[in-house]
Amino acid sequence: MEEKILIFGHRNPDTDSICSSIVKEILNKKNGCKESKAVRLGAVNKETQFVLNYLGIEAPELIEKVEEGQKVILVDHNEFNQSVEGIEKAKILGVIDHHRIANIETAEPLYYTARPYGCTSTILYKDFVQKGIEIEKTEAILMASAIISDTLLLKSPTTTEHDKKALEELGKIANINIEEYGLQMLKAGTDLDDFSEEQLINLDAKSLEKDGTKFVIAQVNTVSIEDVLKRQEKLEEVITKTIEEKELSLFVFAITDILNSNSEIIALGSRTDAVEKAFEKTLENNRAFLSGVVSRKKQLLPVIDKNI
Amino acid sequence: MEEKILIFGHRNPDTDSICSSIVKEILNKKNGCKESKAVRLGAVNKETQFVLNYLGIEAPELIEKVEEGQKVILVDHNEFNQSVEGIEKAKILGVIDHHRIANIETAEPLYYTARPYGCTSTILYKDFVQKGIEIEKTEAILMASAIISDTLLLKSPTTTEHDKKALEELGKIANINIEEYGLQMLKAGTDLDDFSEEQLINLDAKSLEKDGTKFVIAQVNTVSIEDVLKRQEKLEEVITKTIEEKELSLFVFAITDILNSNSEIIALGSRTDAVEKAFEKTLENNRAFLSGVVSRKKQLLPVIDKNI
Repeated sequence: MEEKILIFGHRNPDTDSICSSIVKEILNKKNGCKESKAVRLGAVNKETQFVLNYLGIEAPELIEKVEEGQKVILVDHNEFNQSVEGIEKAKILGVIDHHRIANIETAEPLYYTARPYGCTSTILYKDFVQKGIEIEKTEAILMASAIISDTLLLKSPTTTEHDKKALEELGKIANINIEEYGLQMLKAGTDLDDFSEEQLINLDAKSLEKDGTKFVIAQVNTVSIEDVLKRQEKLEEVITKTIEEKELSLFVFAITDILNSNSEIIALGSRTDAVEKAFEKTLENNRAFLSGVVSRKKQLLPVIDKNI
Repeated sequence: MEEKILIFGHRNPDTDSICSSIVKEILNKKNGCKESKAVRLGAVNKETQFVLNYLGIEAPELIEKVEEGQKVILVDHNEFNQSVEGIEKAKILGVIDHHRIANIETAEPLYYTARPYGCTSTILYKDFVQKGIEIEKTEAILMASAIISDTLLLKSPTTTEHDKKALEELGKIANINIEEYGLQMLKAGTDLDDFSEEQLINLDAKSLEKDGTKFVIAQVNTVSIEDVLKRQEKLEEVITKTIEEKELSLFVFAITDILNSNSEIIALGSRTDAVEKAFEKTLENNRAFLSGVVSRKKQLLPVIDKNI
């Protein structure tokens, strides 16, 4: 284990975190770095499982923590509070990410490649191209899936020309109909029936902190906001419990309609004022409808963070 | 001013900080980003002045601070405490750096390219090549000078194969004798006679902080350690004054013999024990001779930081 270089995305991994980890392992191995090993920091969600099933490959091994001095490469995140337990004492060799930078500190110089693109896999795609390394069908589908997931089939406002170009090229390499495959994949990811309310609020939850104020923005994708709102009472119960346990000032639960590109949010905690200010809306029944809002990174986090 | 994208290296700029800023402006402009403008955060040192004189170009404009929302690109640093006043509220579009990451936080995703190479200009050189943008004589000499400076003509332990390759190619493009030009440049930089002791300790000083403990590691290059040590008494006076004024726990002043690759350090403050532990040496007359030590980043900072 100590000799391996562990590659992983953030906690509560989404499709980009899992697929980009596997792709980075493949890229490194093709590039001569045989010790690379993709791992994951949490359960595989249904959308990602659809991708793995489609390809007939196993999910990366689950890890709970890393030992001091463990060599690691972070993909799809950089903030320590979204990373593995023990990250502070790990040896971070590299980061490939498309988020803001915060809460990261290394002792040594490293490889750090961040780009303001819609998806980590778009950066990896360009890396293959620049290094002149062949992209085979497996990694093409993995990268395409990550881009489809992060950009909601190129409809999210986080989408850039780089993502569009990459997805187009990857579709050609994989020889699949991106639109058809993508809709199947996204739909597989929005099947929320099997999840308890506790699971729902943790499916894709980001823990954040500003000036000592701790808050969480969680998100679920659906094709029917109404279906999820039927469970509001129980959702509020588990959110309130989480707020108490984790001493949060705010918990925002965004229910995103991926077909129509809107979100309904449920916001609880002592600092819901930040949400009201952010969107110039009064919460009613702890809720607000945010027309056109689908991206946590671009449309939720910055404005809420600013008003905390 | 507001419309410009300001590009700058760290405070107390060295040759890499100045040259890489100018080169990044050139690269951006050749790449279609006309608003780019190199600036600097401090006086031009003698070594850098030699380069600018050689090329017959002006130093970038000096700036004291940036306004809120100012678009900036950081080269050769990322830590806010080494950057411009107001950096916390600037809009950081990009970072090109070869140091560890710490004390940086952005609100938005950005371009961040860090590589564990000996010099920022080596990363820029590769960027020219990858983008297929022509390197002309001016930028070739600027990048070569930065690499010569940061790697002490490829003799510093921070030197990588990437730096060697880049310097070789840049020498060919510029059509200069790297060894001859480099020695002249380094020698020009070690003429310390005109400097007051106060200036000497600030020529290339890095302010650092660990767990609330503030310390400074300053460095001067010379061809005669003995010449500098003749001024030890007065140097200690101004270092002691700086420690009091800035509430430092430690001030390390490294006098580096660039021809023989050794350093003599003067260490003062309440935490000189960190230096003694770091190098397993007892300070005598506040001094220690460190054989083979020339790199602050690789041989001084990590071991001192670890023992703070």
